[in-house]
Amino acid sequence: MVADGLPLDDVERAAEVSVDDWYGYWIERCDDYERLGDQALAGGSTITGGGLLWTASLCAHYAQYIWWKEAAIRQAGQSRKVDLYRRAAPHLDPPSERVDIPFGDVTIPAYLRLPTRGTAPFPCVVLIGGLESTKEESRLFEELCLARGLATFAFDGPGQGELFPEHGLQPRFERYTSRVVDYLEERDEIDGGRLGVLGRSLGGYYAPRSAAADQRFAAAVAWGACYDVSEFEQMKPELREGFIYVTGIEDHEAARRLLDEAIDLSDVIGDLRCPTYVLHGAHDDIFSVRHVDRLREAAVGAELEVVVEPDGDHCCHELAHVVRPRMADWLAQNLQVR
Amino acid sequence: MVADGLPLDDVERAAEVSVDDWYGYWIERCDDYERLGDQALAGGSTITGGGLLWTASLCAHYAQYIWWKEAAIRQAGQSRKVDLYRRAAPHLDPPSERVDIPFGDVTIPAYLRLPTRGTAPFPCVVLIGGLESTKEESRLFEELCLARGLATFAFDGPGQGELFPEHGLQPRFERYTSRVVDYLEERDEIDGGRLGVLGRSLGGYYAPRSAAADQRFAAAVAWGACYDVSEFEQMKPELREGFIYVTGIEDHEAARRLLDEAIDLSDVIGDLRCPTYVLHGAHDDIFSVRHVDRLREAAVGAELEVVVEPDGDHCCHELAHVVRPRMADWLAQNLQVR
Repeated sequence: MVADGLPLDDVERAAEVSVDDWYGYWIERCDDYERLGDQALAGGSTITGGGLLWTASLCAHYAQYIWWKEAAIRQAGQSRKVDLYRRAAPHLDPPSERVDIPFGDVTIPAYLRLPTRGTAPFPCVVLIGGLESTKEESRLFEELCLARGLATFAFDGPGQGELFPEHGLQPRFERYTSRVVDYLEERDEIDGGRLGVLGRSLGGYYAPRSAAADQRFAAAVAWGACYDVSEFEQMKPELREGFIYVTGIEDHEAARRLLDEAIDLSDVIGDLRCPTYVLHGAHDDIFSVRHVDRLREAAVGAELEVVVEPDGDHCCHELAHVVRPRMADWLAQNLQVR
Repeated sequence: MVADGLPLDDVERAAEVSVDDWYGYWIERCDDYERLGDQALAGGSTITGGGLLWTASLCAHYAQYIWWKEAAIRQAGQSRKVDLYRRAAPHLDPPSERVDIPFGDVTIPAYLRLPTRGTAPFPCVVLIGGLESTKEESRLFEELCLARGLATFAFDGPGQGELFPEHGLQPRFERYTSRVVDYLEERDEIDGGRLGVLGRSLGGYYAPRSAAADQRFAAAVAWGACYDVSEFEQMKPELREGFIYVTGIEDHEAARRLLDEAIDLSDVIGDLRCPTYVLHGAHDDIFSVRHVDRLREAAVGAELEVVVEPDGDHCCHELAHVVRPRMADWLAQNLQVR
């Protein structure tokens, strides 16, 4: 939570908050930061104002993020997060541009950020969230990319954030990613020949899947490997609950069947061709290192760079200060930042 | 420590380290980050390499910072910090330029950073550390200033960092600050008519003192107010030890007399004319809020903006995410960033 930008003081106080009070605690912090952010904006301090609205948005996210039980509360937190980030976006440095891409009967909600140095067209990294992370939470990682000359494009796919109410998790996530690539190819500021894709947590499943299915990607990163959900029954109850929730299907058995079908790399991974970086924590308590082994065995057509951190937990979040810059460097090198 | 940039994971582990092992623990972390930083630099990743060398430098600082008892160990940590920061400096974004200013029989060691946007000449904030903080620790605050269009200039004065071995704490710190102003007036990139000065912790004494003594400052910030050392006997023993240490005088009584003479705003504060921002924590356990009252009573010639945070501790460090951007905003507004 701190690595993604939440103030340490608030996180420390949260450790003393009961599960029942968790949502209320973070929404109160959210209210405070929104008020401070609006004050700063009213006084003309746009950088501070944008930063505080973004902090408020993160608080709203963490208020709801483990709240699979009550859909209404979860959606209230999600909406608050979305609105606050949208208000913060133009004041971030560099600014974050809201983009809505028509796709069938939905629009894919997304944010594009361009580096302030170097000259367009820029290489660009498409960022994919996980089971409960969305396009609003990647600001700090985006800024590691931006500082290295990479544009960033974060979007919500099915089962995620703004898309969830209309579209739960479904097979062939890669159709959304490919639509994003179509869009990026039309943007003058982006070099369509230098696109990468990175996914975090469950996004560590979506990203290699998307790159295998769309040869326009020149590099891929699995920030935490996930091959399938064959370990579903061994997961913690609240995580299983989360997986069921994002399908949007109430019938448990039907949801399980969908997950089995939707989350399995077997059908496409043999087509992965682009250089792919895989980061995994040896102590990951959600996806075991077996996922790394299976990826390595199956992705025979791609050059893999695999880093398993001996002290790492899920996505190596506690080693953020070491592993995150390294992923950004790898992307910059493989997308040939000039 | 986290607010200044130390990785949370390391700080959490440090909580379980005994006082005797404290130095060794942080030097080991320092070694690790230096090795990782050198690896990154060797691979051409300059942003990551510079960042890791800077993290290593911070570890060396925190290894020694409470180590008043053994001067040799303290100096070893200081030297390590200085060397590592010097190597990190050119790779920071924006880079930090090493500057050495001749002054009598010493040179004042300093670092200058210029904003990457806007056009020269830039307004500039002179940054002063405290009893045990030096020019190497202000990177993150510098970057708040730089993002708002302000150049930054951090230096060690008598009793601080690189100057300490030659010059302990002494009366009339402002002579050093004024020499810095002379230097900045000669730099084409700096607008000598828009200079501010900010001091943190004991620097909250040095900054208003410097601004009172040198009318070339257009704005001053006391990041924690300190009027004098009349509360010396009520301080914690290790802090008293620190004050005695930085005088460089072994005789306790003589050191006390020097401190009484050197740390007292009474002789100059009536001359303070520039707008001055005072930030203080109501729960500051080093300098009580009485210092704010005394400053307010004595600084009759200046427009003061006083913020006492009800939940704040010393320098409001745990509220860093709120109070630091606000100080940077105030400086940007009062130095008229265009």
